[in-house]
Amino acid sequence: MSVSAPAPAAARTAAATPLPVLGDDVLVPVADGTEVTYAALDQAASAPVLRRVWDDVAAYLPYYGSVHRGSGHLSQLSTDLYERSRATVAAFLGCRADDQVVFTRGTTDSLNLLAAVVPDGTRVFVFESEHHAALLPWRRCETTVLDTPRSPQQAVSVLEAALHGGPDGPKLVCVTGASNVTGEIWPVRELARVAHRHGARVVLDAAQLAPHHPVDVAGLDVDWVAFSGHKLYAPFGAGVLAGRSDWLDAAEPYLAGGGASRRVAREPDGGLDVAWHTGTARHEAGSPNVVGAHAVASACRALAEAGLELLVRRERALLEVLLDGLAQVPEVRVLSLFDRGEDGVGGGGEGGRAAGRVGVVSFVVDGWDGTEFADALSAEYGIGVRSGLFCAHPLLRNLLGRGHDEGGDCGAPSAGALNAVRVSFGAGTPDEHVERFVRAVRSLAARR
Amino acid sequence: MSVSAPAPAAARTAAATPLPVLGDDVLVPVADGTEVTYAALDQAASAPVLRRVWDDVAAYLPYYGSVHRGSGHLSQLSTDLYERSRATVAAFLGCRADDQVVFTRGTTDSLNLLAAVVPDGTRVFVFESEHHAALLPWRRCETTVLDTPRSPQQAVSVLEAALHGGPDGPKLVCVTGASNVTGEIWPVRELARVAHRHGARVVLDAAQLAPHHPVDVAGLDVDWVAFSGHKLYAPFGAGVLAGRSDWLDAAEPYLAGGGASRRVAREPDGGLDVAWHTGTARHEAGSPNVVGAHAVASACRALAEAGLELLVRRERALLEVLLDGLAQVPEVRVLSLFDRGEDGVGGGGEGGRAAGRVGVVSFVVDGWDGTEFADALSAEYGIGVRSGLFCAHPLLRNLLGRGHDEGGDCGAPSAGALNAVRVSFGAGTPDEHVERFVRAVRSLAARR
Repeated sequence: MSVSAPAPAAARTAAATPLPVLGDDVLVPVADGTEVTYAALDQAASAPVLRRVWDDVAAYLPYYGSVHRGSGHLSQLSTDLYERSRATVAAFLGCRADDQVVFTRGTTDSLNLLAAVVPDGTRVFVFESEHHAALLPWRRCETTVLDTPRSPQQAVSVLEAALHGGPDGPKLVCVTGASNVTGEIWPVRELARVAHRHGARVVLDAAQLAPHHPVDVAGLDVDWVAFSGHKLYAPFGAGVLAGRSDWLDAAEPYLAGGGASRRVAREPDGGLDVAWHTGTARHEAGSPNVVGAHAVASACRALAEAGLELLVRRERALLEVLLDGLAQVPEVRVLSLFDRGEDGVGGGGEGGRAAGRVGVVSFVVDGWDGTEFADALSAEYGIGVRSGLFCAHPLLRNLLGRGHDEGGDCGAPSAGALNAVRVSFGAGTPDEHVERFVRAVRSLAARR
Repeated sequence: MSVSAPAPAAARTAAATPLPVLGDDVLVPVADGTEVTYAALDQAASAPVLRRVWDDVAAYLPYYGSVHRGSGHLSQLSTDLYERSRATVAAFLGCRADDQVVFTRGTTDSLNLLAAVVPDGTRVFVFESEHHAALLPWRRCETTVLDTPRSPQQAVSVLEAALHGGPDGPKLVCVTGASNVTGEIWPVRELARVAHRHGARVVLDAAQLAPHHPVDVAGLDVDWVAFSGHKLYAPFGAGVLAGRSDWLDAAEPYLAGGGASRRVAREPDGGLDVAWHTGTARHEAGSPNVVGAHAVASACRALAEAGLELLVRRERALLEVLLDGLAQVPEVRVLSLFDRGEDGVGGGGEGGRAAGRVGVVSFVVDGWDGTEFADALSAEYGIGVRSGLFCAHPLLRNLLGRGHDEGGDCGAPSAGALNAVRVSFGAGTPDEHVERFVRAVRSLAARR
């Protein structure tokens, strides 16, 4: 690893300042008896609330009313707000004019929805390096799990080989925009091109991409995209599945209930005759989460207005500081899938360690279990990160060189196991948090 | 209908005051060019946010962090808050010690979750008078739709007849706590007794009961209960399914993804070997909606601390004003399922029109289509109600005497069709809103 000294962070991130978030002044106790501001560096799991999102939710809530139901002013206002939220999200994602934006509860729910509506007999292709939300929902389908590629080019060729000469019939490729473990950006456009050439459709899991990088559904030519509000600074229970309507309209509703049903009547034999809506209503049974949808739309607006290119540039500068800092700690090994200098979505090109990555980095430290290390970062430095296998067990076993049978728990990593540490930041992260993190890692690593 | 004058409302509701809600000072324009405070009387669809809930959410949000994931202080705090929210909800519902509280997105989602986990071959029994959220989720099951009963006793005997002598095997009865159309309370305890005598389990749909009436899972002896946060003054995308764990633990996870998966590994043949969690994690894949769960728990605490008995008494007094007022308008016909004076859950007994009902009333007005009437209430009086068939089509066709093939849409009732009007209120409704509503109905009804 290089040990070249990074340029001062302040000089490199002058292009933009952090977006204001709630909690940026929260003090937490540390081991020396003092208090420090909390450094929220587990944003790949859940990100702090943008102050702008909070302000929008707070401004709306007195006007909260029943959506799609009710004649009152506040019902009309709430219905209008909910439907306009779809349009805001569609614009943020660069959707095609006839794409649907379905509000779900998050990426996991979005991909489970898509898995529920794919035509019978659909064959699914997914890389083993995906997180479980993308690996596991395809229970109705014959699923081909693709080996972890060692470069973006290899990802494309692995997919090409898997699709080549396969049987006819519906096919779906589930690809990640950015790894939830390494932060590396995947060659989405190229994967979509290969998929479409073989008659397969593509869903982009943008859970880790959307908070950090422009997503352009039409430009990338993906058929669907899924992301979560709680990773996009809007943790009010809503996420999104957006994309083509044909499979969605042809399938049974995801949830059965009011809102999805257009007409229900008793049959002469005593049973029920049900006609379902098409369009977004079909898969949104129950009262819509208008607060959550409004919050997601607010976050999309806030990021767009702040300038996604500026945000990308600032996060990349912070990521350089972080990666250069880790590179100077000989006990640290950063986990990577790909060779450096690749950027599959169209960013990068400037080179540097941060090219082709978003602000999500996992690593191991000689002499430390990941969970002990994460606990020390919290106890001594007020830094919140995550340890474990990050709900991406096959990938982590691969990257850590662990055996097939060794444990690992998404939710509660056990000390003593060989776990990795993940640090992740976002649009609201001040330089100081990353600088503190680098200092802390250097100090802790030297201790053993 | 009786035309006896009601006692002054002020005298009868002195026992308690409305709970503060957001939006109680929102002004809306009315037809005479003035503005009036908005009267939110569509609370059976969505209720305003309790100010207490809002304060709790606002106080928490700076401390928002990743739940079940992450070593940082705020992750620990958020995880603790999330898990404590389950305990608060369990206490509010009177759950048994070993009941699970699963956070869902609402009642529709809760009942779809239960429908997904019932054992293969389960036979479901549900009254046609239920709303679609309770009628439609049982797509995997052979479903017996029971005719609308004309009294609580008849409900019990209809269920008894349906269950009597049926085949062995798992059975589930889905019963409503209070009708989403008439507000009438169902004889839940008696229905559960009959169900259990025949080896059937019972899920209580408490969407309309929980906001207005104590729910006692153990006392009623139901196996599960479902309700929605957005009808319980906590519209942050969360609802609840609470109850017995055996069917939940034995079934495939509702959503597949991280959090639900304990361990995922590649098989030697390239496939995936997945071990799932049991307990609440099994059906809560994806990042939990901690804001929504906290809001629901906050609402449970607020209602419990305000005194549910006081709230019931106050709402019943308001309901007397409302029903007595409607009874004085000869053009109005209030829709009812049952004979009066019954109360299946244990309230009532004092008699009066409100006995055995919660604050949900549907009616038709001679000479008016329901949608025109609802629009007039909004435009001229600033009152928000709902018109249509209330996502309970078979019941409405029955009560309105409409033909089997006549239309009706959950979401967007069409003027010109014969729709009903529904008025519904809650713990935050001031007397003035109900009094204004009664005056408005009298005035509008006399116009045609």
